[in-house]
Amino acid sequence: MNAPWHMNSSLRDVPDAVNARLDDYLTSSAEEFGHINPAVDTAIDILRGFILNGGKRVRPTFAWAGVRAGLSHTNPDAELPAASSLLTAISALEFIQACALIHDDIIDASDTRRGHPTAHRSFEAEHRENSWHGSAEHYGVSQAILCGDLAFSWADDMFNGAGLPASALERTRPAWRAMRTEVIAGQILDVAVEANGSEDVADSMSVITYKTASYTVARPLHIGAALVGADRQTIDLLRGIGHDIGVAFQLRDDQLGVFGDPAVTGKPAGDDLRSGKRTTLINYALSTNDSAAATRLRAGLGDPNANVDELKSIIVDTGADQRVENLIAKHSTRAIDAIHSADFDPDITNELAALAEKLTHRSF
Amino acid sequence: MNAPWHMNSSLRDVPDAVNARLDDYLTSSAEEFGHINPAVDTAIDILRGFILNGGKRVRPTFAWAGVRAGLSHTNPDAELPAASSLLTAISALEFIQACALIHDDIIDASDTRRGHPTAHRSFEAEHRENSWHGSAEHYGVSQAILCGDLAFSWADDMFNGAGLPASALERTRPAWRAMRTEVIAGQILDVAVEANGSEDVADSMSVITYKTASYTVARPLHIGAALVGADRQTIDLLRGIGHDIGVAFQLRDDQLGVFGDPAVTGKPAGDDLRSGKRTTLINYALSTNDSAAATRLRAGLGDPNANVDELKSIIVDTGADQRVENLIAKHSTRAIDAIHSADFDPDITNELAALAEKLTHRSF
Repeated sequence: MNAPWHMNSSLRDVPDAVNARLDDYLTSSAEEFGHINPAVDTAIDILRGFILNGGKRVRPTFAWAGVRAGLSHTNPDAELPAASSLLTAISALEFIQACALIHDDIIDASDTRRGHPTAHRSFEAEHRENSWHGSAEHYGVSQAILCGDLAFSWADDMFNGAGLPASALERTRPAWRAMRTEVIAGQILDVAVEANGSEDVADSMSVITYKTASYTVARPLHIGAALVGADRQTIDLLRGIGHDIGVAFQLRDDQLGVFGDPAVTGKPAGDDLRSGKRTTLINYALSTNDSAAATRLRAGLGDPNANVDELKSIIVDTGADQRVENLIAKHSTRAIDAIHSADFDPDITNELAALAEKLTHRSF
Repeated sequence: MNAPWHMNSSLRDVPDAVNARLDDYLTSSAEEFGHINPAVDTAIDILRGFILNGGKRVRPTFAWAGVRAGLSHTNPDAELPAASSLLTAISALEFIQACALIHDDIIDASDTRRGHPTAHRSFEAEHRENSWHGSAEHYGVSQAILCGDLAFSWADDMFNGAGLPASALERTRPAWRAMRTEVIAGQILDVAVEANGSEDVADSMSVITYKTASYTVARPLHIGAALVGADRQTIDLLRGIGHDIGVAFQLRDDQLGVFGDPAVTGKPAGDDLRSGKRTTLINYALSTNDSAAATRLRAGLGDPNANVDELKSIIVDTGADQRVENLIAKHSTRAIDAIHSADFDPDITNELAALAEKLTHRSF
């Protein structure tokens, strides 16, 4: 990043700027704690590789949108943090995300993430290469649990040590707390729903609300706005906009998981059908009055040999596809209208509306 | 707890007072987030049961000792937190401990803790009772990872929300950060050493330093003293005392793990021999010049059918037992001397010395 970070920096510039901050933080933390033992250095290296290896930095981007939108409507006596401190604070969201992904990959027993081995597989490979004692697989899981804990711990440290005024930390704390508890609660719910086999749309929508809408969009916007002392009305408005963008974004993801073009999404055709995941799209389809169709769909879900095209046809015939498209349209339209109606600075209005548009209409 | 908490409250009163604070915090958090879904309520219930089900509250007790010792030597301009806020802040250490134990129990594949099922076994049992889909064991591990994350998250929330002055939070942050990173690093090291089979005393002492001495004693003392604005010299003195108590405490634990009386320790005779753990005691014994003895000992370690009495004799004959007793004496004497030489309030001097004595000379 060449230009210094300033209060009007574009949302487009967030990913590179965040990457640079994360790189600095990881370097200084490795120096601070790397003396402990080579095993700890290895864990920090794996965490570094995991964090710096791509990622769209969606959460810091929305947090920065919250900063810029919030700046138009701050409480008159709010102490304003420096732009550089704000950048550090929003970068810390990526450490929470690293923990969430590392622990999620254990839970989902995933082998790869963004084309590279997941953290538990990296530790497992280290164990195998060294022919150590015990189960390599259990070693990988054990160290990845701890590596995720380290990331979670550093998220708080980076946020609290960003150089924000005490008043800014204080007013942002409720949003920070809610975001962390809500993403964990969303994961707990997601794991529970998969186990208990719920086909209830209320459950799949609840997972969307906590795991995606709140954690990925609404709370980052809230955090950004709170950091600069935005007034209550603006924060509530941004949270509503964030909820709508987040719901539409995840429902679009559900659509792409069934109907997406593998050449564009990078995932196998009908990925969600093969996994058998009960998304809102699937739950709408299963709730059809055509019980024969529901039975055929249910039988095919999670079956790697199922006829994907047939399952897609069933879903379309139940009208579930159209219901989800209508929901996406409702939420994304409401979000974009609210962005335009809000009295934000015109630059951030346009950038945030374009981002909402891109995330909810995407084909990737 | 009947009497209100005050700055001179005894170390003896810490456990009950901390339990009451944890109970309150869990109750209000369950109300705050319990609306999300019954699955989240279950996770909070399991966390509550885990946290409130015993525990000696060693870390809050040392943190309170740090408060009281630090009060004798505060920086003149330090803003002093209210006693009640200090109690809340030190109680938060138990949420970190809950995360550490829940995740540790997954790593060690332990079935019970304090006579009750571990968290992952509790979630696993819930899965079995409901005949849910998929592996009950994997479900238990997945939810316990998340439950530990929740505890870790709430540790920060409780600490940061304790009502401490911003200046007190600010000056305590480095100790809080170091404690959390050090305990995770200590666990990473412990898992690595078990896998790579290190019999190096430097490694086993490093595990003791980070996982026990720093996390359990030195950093809690540091945190307590920093909270009340103790001067640098007092903090350094307390950290040194904490390190010595912690090392002696863990070495005593190693001794009891081999030579302890099952009727007193509550653990099977020669528990550490059967597990094959490379403690400092074992590593001293294995480093003997008598290679035949080392070979016999190495063969018996981790073997459930080994002759425990024979292994004990080997350890004593190598002089390892005596070396460890000497180390315990050195560290505990140095700690107790330092406590008495320090210019603390006489009440806390006596209480802290008695606690150090009890922890390092214990037979339980």
